[in-house]
Amino acid sequence: MKNKKLWNEGCKYIAGGNMLFSKRPDLYLPDKWPPYYLKAKGCEIIGMDKKKYTDTSMMGIGTNVLGYANKEVDDEVIKEIKNSNMSTLNSYHEVQLAKKLIQLHPWSSKVKFARSGGEANSIAIRIARVVKKNSPIAVCGYHGWHDWYLALNKKNNKKQFNEYLMKGIPEEGIPKELSKYIYPFFYNDLDTLKFLIKKKGVRIIKMEVRRNILPKNNFLIKVKRLCEKNNCILIFDECTSGFRQTLGGLHKFYKVNPDICIFGKAIGNGFPLTAILGTEKVMKNVSKTFISSTFWTERTGSVAALKTIEIMERDKTWKTILKTSRKIKSEWMRIAKKNKIKIEIFGIESILKFKFLSENNLIYKSIITEKMLEKGYLANTSFYISIAHTDKILKNYFFHLNNIFKIIKKIEDGVSYKKYFKSKFPLSEFTRFN
Amino acid sequence: MKNKKLWNEGCKYIAGGNMLFSKRPDLYLPDKWPPYYLKAKGCEIIGMDKKKYTDTSMMGIGTNVLGYANKEVDDEVIKEIKNSNMSTLNSYHEVQLAKKLIQLHPWSSKVKFARSGGEANSIAIRIARVVKKNSPIAVCGYHGWHDWYLALNKKNNKKQFNEYLMKGIPEEGIPKELSKYIYPFFYNDLDTLKFLIKKKGVRIIKMEVRRNILPKNNFLIKVKRLCEKNNCILIFDECTSGFRQTLGGLHKFYKVNPDICIFGKAIGNGFPLTAILGTEKVMKNVSKTFISSTFWTERTGSVAALKTIEIMERDKTWKTILKTSRKIKSEWMRIAKKNKIKIEIFGIESILKFKFLSENNLIYKSIITEKMLEKGYLANTSFYISIAHTDKILKNYFFHLNNIFKIIKKIEDGVSYKKYFKSKFPLSEFTRFN
Repeated sequence: MKNKKLWNEGCKYIAGGNMLFSKRPDLYLPDKWPPYYLKAKGCEIIGMDKKKYTDTSMMGIGTNVLGYANKEVDDEVIKEIKNSNMSTLNSYHEVQLAKKLIQLHPWSSKVKFARSGGEANSIAIRIARVVKKNSPIAVCGYHGWHDWYLALNKKNNKKQFNEYLMKGIPEEGIPKELSKYIYPFFYNDLDTLKFLIKKKGVRIIKMEVRRNILPKNNFLIKVKRLCEKNNCILIFDECTSGFRQTLGGLHKFYKVNPDICIFGKAIGNGFPLTAILGTEKVMKNVSKTFISSTFWTERTGSVAALKTIEIMERDKTWKTILKTSRKIKSEWMRIAKKNKIKIEIFGIESILKFKFLSENNLIYKSIITEKMLEKGYLANTSFYISIAHTDKILKNYFFHLNNIFKIIKKIEDGVSYKKYFKSKFPLSEFTRFN
Repeated sequence: MKNKKLWNEGCKYIAGGNMLFSKRPDLYLPDKWPPYYLKAKGCEIIGMDKKKYTDTSMMGIGTNVLGYANKEVDDEVIKEIKNSNMSTLNSYHEVQLAKKLIQLHPWSSKVKFARSGGEANSIAIRIARVVKKNSPIAVCGYHGWHDWYLALNKKNNKKQFNEYLMKGIPEEGIPKELSKYIYPFFYNDLDTLKFLIKKKGVRIIKMEVRRNILPKNNFLIKVKRLCEKNNCILIFDECTSGFRQTLGGLHKFYKVNPDICIFGKAIGNGFPLTAILGTEKVMKNVSKTFISSTFWTERTGSVAALKTIEIMERDKTWKTILKTSRKIKSEWMRIAKKNKIKIEIFGIESILKFKFLSENNLIYKSIITEKMLEKGYLANTSFYISIAHTDKILKNYFFHLNNIFKIIKKIEDGVSYKKYFKSKFPLSEFTRFN
């Protein structure tokens, strides 16, 4: 079996098997989820064994809102590769992109670009720390693999922090002193945030605008007011939420502006680029520190992002995404109801998720993956929506999903899951806090 | 003036003006060094004003050993862009590249890839710290913008460290506690390294194999023995030295194997990719920590590196580079001697540098840049050699350089430099330690 052999080689030569935790096949269905792809287009992926899959799962773990191998983006990138992606001189596209991002986010005045989400997060923290010196950071959500953030898990010993932890994330190799600079808070928990500011001297707040839960009781507006009142720097990590359901940050929808905002993932439709936007007040401090890297100057990233944003603006892709989101939501509910299965839908509109309100949730999720794979779909209970997810694709997806829900109903009614599920169970994902 | 207007815009919208310190035009010749390029090919760059320049300077600050827009590399990248550079599944090219790198460096057994040199350095440090817990790190050379490294400059107050510092690098925004985890040492200074191991508990040593100075008295072999004896992890940062004058690390030339080695810059001929190679003993610890990023999975990086290495191996490009290096060295010496000017040549063979043994060194360097720009060359006193630097290009370069040396001789003999130099002086570069 070509897939298995290649994955074994991957594990032999690459520490951890691959480069992104969320792309480990054993998180989805060990030995069956295809580890590699030959090529992809729209939302179709051809695996190493030439088998065709429709991606109704993570679409590059969030990178491809315009679908895989979008011709317009790719043509522009290819044109500029022929013009040379690199030289001793800078690429003018970075100026155009900076200008465009600021135009879309008028609260911001200066930009910095990087290549991955982890480093973009570290750049934002560095800039905030230049301004706020030794202030601890309050965090909510996931912000990458870097020391400043994973130091959070060093508080593991303290019982009161246990519930916040991203359980299962190993965190060795981080200087223990860093843990005193970081505190977690739950989404919608304004009181903890107030406590951290008042009692722990927190002046930097870093959070995702929204992940799984809706803001309650004007949470985001209140966080903003709290920051203004206490002279805190508010950083929104929009690597995941940006450029999906608005033309730019999700914070535009909530009309709450941060001091610093980070974009990644979808911004270049799969080409590596991350951006750090900030207000003049904050960004003027960049000259007091050293933030510099050769490959941040490479041209394809800004070229891809410029074209991606142009297409999004022209086609109002966020409207398509939101429309598709409503369809998926109502169809999930409809087939659940029809089969008398209780599910709960959550996540932001552009990245829908559901769970079974049953102790068998993980089993059912695994059954979906197994049965959908047999029908030629990459699927679980997350759906990263792209404009390539047409009505026809959705129709077929729901036809198969409905049949699987029928099986799940039988298991709910007492039949052993072993009658239907023939695979190994996936490794569980780390627990995200909020 | 298009250039100046665009650079002003760059400085308005981008914090620091651009993404890499070494690509700031004011480091070379303020208002005259072109800030941006339209396109490039071989070692020729077309500026924004359509003016053609021959790059006899930094060739992408070290990224383009095969010249700009190398057709073979680009064709392969373009092919794989059409196959989609991204998907929910992993790219099999990363396995092929990992295998190839290990084959070229048989002391290593596992690899990790990233997108920029700074993060590759941080990954190496994280892995080493998993093994060596709270060991401080001894460093020699430049290793990026991250906290663990810049914490070195926090020792600024202590007189004894002053001479090691990268002077002029601002370093605000870094937790002060990190400075206790880092010590500098000079190249060839084995005694300090012994002291740091014995008295400071250093068990991680991170260095460039060679930068400006030659190893004296078997320095590298002795460092290796010291590491073995004291159970230290030796990390070679070969972002700059790798894949230039050997097929892989410069450490292959010196026959000294590290525990971890980092590649970047030239490895993908300008496409962003960095690689971290390590021994089985070290890399098996990766699972004890969390190192993961979405854009590290993107395909163009590994595709470009695979093709770049294939071409280097097929054409034995390191032999061409070394041959060109000998020519440049002897021509620099010849025209210096002919014009009775004293220069000193230094640097690794593939990145040659010279300085004038005169108090006017910076003036002469600036005159070279000014006069060569007038003749259509990007030049100063550094020469990153690529295979695109043909004999014909070198002949013309030396013809013009010889004429400038004639001017320099006149200044050495008492004529005011102001008679010849009509530009502003460049900002001085930060002082590199070794």
